[in-house]
Formats: sequence, structure tokens, C-alpha cells
Amino acid sequence: MSKLFASRMNNVPNSFLREIFRSASSPRMISFAGGVPNPKFFPVQELAEATARVVQRGERRIFQYGFTEGFLPLREWIAERYRQKYGLTVEPGEILITNGSQQGLDLLGKVFLDPGDQMAIESPGYLGAILSFSMYQPRFQPVPLLEDGIDTAALEKTFQANRIKFFYAVTNFQNPSGLTYSEQKRAAVAQLLQKYQVAFIEDDPYGELRYAGQPLPPMRHYLVENVCLLGSFSKIVSPGVRLGWICTTQEVMKGLILAKQSADLQSNPFAQGVLHQYLLDNDIEAHIAKINVAYREQRDLMLAMAEELFPEEITYTKPEGGMFVWCTLPEHKSAMDLFHRAIEEEVAFVPGRAFYVDGTGENTFRLSFSTNDEAEIEEGMKRLTRAAKRLLAEKS
Amino acid sequence: MSKLFASRMNNVPNSFLREIFRSASSPRMISFAGGVPNPKFFPVQELAEATARVVQRGERRIFQYGFTEGFLPLREWIAERYRQKYGLTVEPGEILITNGSQQGLDLLGKVFLDPGDQMAIESPGYLGAILSFSMYQPRFQPVPLLEDGIDTAALEKTFQANRIKFFYAVTNFQNPSGLTYSEQKRAAVAQLLQKYQVAFIEDDPYGELRYAGQPLPPMRHYLVENVCLLGSFSKIVSPGVRLGWICTTQEVMKGLILAKQSADLQSNPFAQGVLHQYLLDNDIEAHIAKINVAYREQRDLMLAMAEELFPEEITYTKPEGGMFVWCTLPEHKSAMDLFHRAIEEEVAFVPGRAFYVDGTGENTFRLSFSTNDEAEIEEGMKRLTRAAKRLLAEKS
Repeated sequence: MSKLFASRMNNVPNSFLREIFRSASSPRMISFAGGVPNPKFFPVQELAEATARVVQRGERRIFQYGFTEGFLPLREWIAERYRQKYGLTVEPGEILITNGSQQGLDLLGKVFLDPGDQMAIESPGYLGAILSFSMYQPRFQPVPLLEDGIDTAALEKTFQANRIKFFYAVTNFQNPSGLTYSEQKRAAVAQLLQKYQVAFIEDDPYGELRYAGQPLPPMRHYLVENVCLLGSFSKIVSPGVRLGWICTTQEVMKGLILAKQSADLQSNPFAQGVLHQYLLDNDIEAHIAKINVAYREQRDLMLAMAEELFPEEITYTKPEGGMFVWCTLPEHKSAMDLFHRAIEEEVAFVPGRAFYVDGTGENTFRLSFSTNDEAEIEEGMKRLTRAAKRLLAEKS
Repeated sequence: MSKLFASRMNNVPNSFLREIFRSASSPRMISFAGGVPNPKFFPVQELAEATARVVQRGERRIFQYGFTEGFLPLREWIAERYRQKYGLTVEPGEILITNGSQQGLDLLGKVFLDPGDQMAIESPGYLGAILSFSMYQPRFQPVPLLEDGIDTAALEKTFQANRIKFFYAVTNFQNPSGLTYSEQKRAAVAQLLQKYQVAFIEDDPYGELRYAGQPLPPMRHYLVENVCLLGSFSKIVSPGVRLGWICTTQEVMKGLILAKQSADLQSNPFAQGVLHQYLLDNDIEAHIAKINVAYREQRDLMLAMAEELFPEEITYTKPEGGMFVWCTLPEHKSAMDLFHRAIEEEVAFVPGRAFYVDGTGENTFRLSFSTNDEAEIEEGMKRLTRAAKRLLAEKS
């Protein structure tokens, strides 16, 4: 790195996933490393038609500079959907359009974090969030995840012991663990946030991908002040349109608008106009239902294979939605060692330690089923089992 | 602002332009406040056709997550154009696609600036850059602009007296002044940058909009190390596709890729694919030539009206390209006072003080001719002259 660079550039975690994906790129490799949507469901033709349509009806705004907040009809659509789906009252003025929910993380880091500020994060936590927030040089306070969401006793201890600016969480089908917060957990977290006056960043890119159980309301249902809810069109329409949003109070929005303006003025007006036209012309509920049928089958098969094949020393989560199954080896075993053996067997995944800010998690790893067909999941899980049995048979 | 916000949120200049544009929004108002491209030249139909075409030939990559660096064919196109236009050797690996050149400023601020770091900026300087860089809490060192570019004697003094991280400049048809660096100035700046080991951020959104004189090479022609060149498709195709780029060395690129990944993973893959298809299918040189004919006529008319009507106490620049004419009132007069009188006469512009980081420039203002037709320029300049004569007649 150049000696002219800012000190924050030395704090950034290694771009570990780039290496993983490089290893996973050989043609015979079966990769469970991804976690991207299955491209066969992208509404490619419909998006091309939406482009023709929006131009045909003379909508020229989408080719000019737009408002920092985003394209108003798209913000109205998002607000209305929160009302219909969860009965939430959201004004379009409480929605900021972002470049996927990833940009939401960067903007919120910019608005909230001074160097040295403390923030709470799930352990394991989303790697992309760790990367985005790292740029603002916070001190991460990891809090363990349990089966039904964050460990609230540990969360309260963290809030007591430190002046925490915000708690960042993925409440539905978490990346990387696949776990979901129960209704009770959500309510309990809201109480703690209010008691300790901590802001909340709820990242919800996967919430629509539910294959079992009932949808649960976002934190805003329990608490409004200083709560920021991040959503995304990446998993339900296409990551390539690169659009997501932040839903929050007018007070936080004032800071976000300044941050967004200074970041890139506004999200892509062309893509916003095309996406909005797509949403007008197509039944998004039917589309989501269709992709959920396919993802559910993929999840079911991966879990059935794990049940049938995995040695009992490997435990794993049973996600109600999303894209991830999270696996744990016996404590003394390393998922990096498993990774090297798996690459020899031509199957890939993501070792878990990158998801921990405190250097733990060496014995964990993440599997994704989102882009693999039946044959790949069956064969890949066989290969992975062979690699795991080799590792477990070794003296450590 | 929320008490949970980071301290940087207190440093941001007021969103002064929002107020200006609000004043300028009444229907009878003639606005020279803008500075956005003329929407009548947007290749709307061609972009819709490009979308259909890119989908038709089965290009699905543009709907998936893409590479942080951007869409490779688009980066190759940009590199090749630098070779053809200026004989510059640029590798696609030295190009990062950004959300307009505005995002380039934010990413470079993130990569280079620790709080309290010093940076040099033209006086007057681009307001959007002041906003973006402010978020990283630097100390701005303003350096005066002369007719043929920066005052190099003052620049050297600034480099001598302070440890400057980078010098930020708009070398062609500067915003707000309309001024252009001469060939000699470019070479002299390169020497100073090298001597004092200062990085350079060359913002060039307007370079293609030249109406007189010969194109001059960017700084990279004179110096490569730590030189960052920002370009944009906003002024030559459409701001709505929201795409620009940074061209720099591999060393700086390493930091930029981390910053970009943490900011929003990648620029809009869909818009990148569509824009690239548009560039393949259309003659961009012919398009640029066409818009330059129109902008030249608008510039000529505005300058002719100023020559004919303006009281001689008002001086103004004669830009060789771009969108801006920069005006100066007598020293004791305020352009804010002129602004209020101009609004009464139903003509708007941008008072100049927001372009100065040191609180000077009270007697300056910016006119843009980019979106106004002949009748508007004639009538608007008459109204502005009336307002100016009223102001100049007042005792101050």
C-alpha cells in the first residue's frame, strides 16, 4: 500500500473471499462457497421489456440527475409494501434508495461512527458488514448468536460495559449462520435498545426467502427511534440492478442524505426507473413464490444429505429460509484444514473464521445451496463428507 | 442532528444548492443555476435499444453480482479511448468503474485522508468535491486560480508550508470558473507534484465538451505516480446511467478496490452492460460533436449578451468549453444581494461563496448555459442585467 494512504487502509480485513473464490473456480469444482442468487431466476426478459416500456411512455427523468433520496415512485412502492406485509406505517420520506443494502452499511458507518466508537455485532457476523464498518475504525464488540437469535443476556452485558453506538444484526436467515430471531427475541432486543439508547441496524436482504414458518415483523414494529432497516432487490429481482434501501426516521435520514450526496449524489436513476416499471408490470409476489419453491427444494436436499452422510461430530443449522447452512466441527478441528482437503475432493465452501471479529470460529464453515442443482448438491455433499471423514480420522 | 452521529456530520457545508434550486423552481423563473446536461440530447431510444440488444445476445452477467473493478469490456473501451485520444498507455487494470465521478471523490477521500490531513484545492473549487472530502475531515488549503490555471507560485508555497496529501483540480472548463489549464501549467504542476511528492486528483467531467482551441492531455501524460484521473459518462451520454471511472496506478488501485468493495461492492452491472452495448452500437464521437455544436451556440450567445448588456463593473470568464461562465462583481458588492434581486426579476444563478473554503468570494457568481435555449438566454441575461444595475446603483 502507498505511504500516502490513510490509516484506515491498514485496518481492513484481508480480502479473504477473493482467495476462496479463486480456489473454487476450476471447472470440475462444485462450489457451496457462493451465496449469490440463482441466475436462472433473473427476470431478464421482463427487465428488457420494462426498459422499452419506460422509454416508450416518455419517462425522461431517469436519464437525468435525480434526487439524492431516490426515485419517488419506487420509494412509495417500498413504503406501501411494508404496510401491506407487516402493517408498518412508513412514509416515502423515510426511505433512501441505496446501491444494494451494502451501500446502506457504508452510509450508516459514515453517519454514526467516529474512530474508536464501539459497535455490537453478531458472532458470527456478516463479513461484508465487517468490511464496510472497518473503514470507519470502530471497536467491534461481538455478541454470540443462539438458535433463536442473539444471546440477549450477553447483549445486555455488552451494552452495560461499553458505550455502544449501534447494534448491527441480520435478523432473518442470517449470513453466515442461517439463524432467525424469534418473536420474543425481537421484542427483548427492542427493550434493550431503548433502555441503553443504542441505535439498531437491521440488515434484511433475505427476509423474503422464507421456506418454513411465519414471516416475523422487523424491529421497527417494536421500536422506531434510531432503528435503521436495510432491504434489497438483489435476492428477489436481480443483484445486477444494484438497488436496495434504508428505512429509518426523518432524523437519521437527514444525516444519511448528506452521506449519500457526498458518496455518489444518488443511486442509478436509470436502474431505479427500469426496476419500478418492472414492479408495476409484473407480479412480484408470484415471482418470489416461484423462487422460494426452488430454493426450498435445494435447502431440503442439502439438509437431507447432511442428515444421511455427515459424521455426527459435525453439527449444522436448519435454516427456515435464505441461502446458508452453518456447520461446526469438533472444537479442536480447523475448517481451513477441511477446506484444503475439500479442494482436493473438488468441493468448496467458506471457512468460518472470517465471520468472527475476535479470531475465534476456526472450527466453523458456511455452505450455500442457492446456485446448485440437485445433482451438484448430492455429489458435492458426498465429496464434502469424504473430506470431512479424512480430516476427522487424522490425529490433531 | 442525532446525538449519536459521528463528529464528521458537523463538518459538512450546508446543502446550500438545495435552497438555491428551490428558489429557482417557479414556472416563470429562468435558471442559469443548473449545470446539468441538456436532456434533449440524451440518447434515450438508443439506450433502450442497447438494453434489448444486450439481453437478446444472452448477456446474463449484467444481472448478477459483478467484479468490484467493473465490467471488463467497458474498462477496455475507456483504456482504448485514452490511447486513441491522447496516446496514453492505460491498462484496463488501471480503470475502476464508479457511480459517476462523484463517487471517485468519495473513494479517494476514503483511501487518502485521515482526519486533519491537508489537501490543496482550487479557489474557487468544485462544491461537490468540498462536500465529499469534508466527510473525511481534512484541512483544506485553497490555492487561487489564474486565467491559465492554478497559480503555481502559490501552489509551491502551499506545498512548502504544509504536508499536503493531494491536490484536487478540475483542469478543463473548471466548475465553477470555466477556466482551463494551459499546456505549460500542466507541465509545471507535474513538476511540483513530483518535487513535493504530492498525489493529484484530476477531475475531468467536462473535457469532451470543448468548443474552441485544442484538447490538452491529462496530467498522466506528464506524470503517472500517484496521479488519479476521474472521468464520467454523465456529460457525454446521460447522468442517469450514473457511471464514471478512476484511472490510476495499480498501487493506488489496490486501496481503491478495498474502498469500492466496502462502499457498494461494485457499480451497477446492468447499467454498465447497457452503456457498453450503447457504445458498441453507436458513434459516440458523432454524438459528442453534435452536442458540442449546440452547447457552443449557447455559450456564444450568453457571452455576446454579457458583452452587450453587462455594466463594465462586472467581469466574466470566456470558457473554451464546459457549462459555466464565472462572473465577478466589484469587491464591495455581494452576489447574495444580487441573487435576491435576480429572483425578483425571475432569473437565478449560483452565488459564488459556496465554492470557497475560506469564506471569501462573496462578490462572485456562476452562470450555466447548458440547459437554456436561445430565447431563455436572451431574456434571462436581460433580467440579470436589470438586477445587476439595480444592485450597482445602490450605495453599499
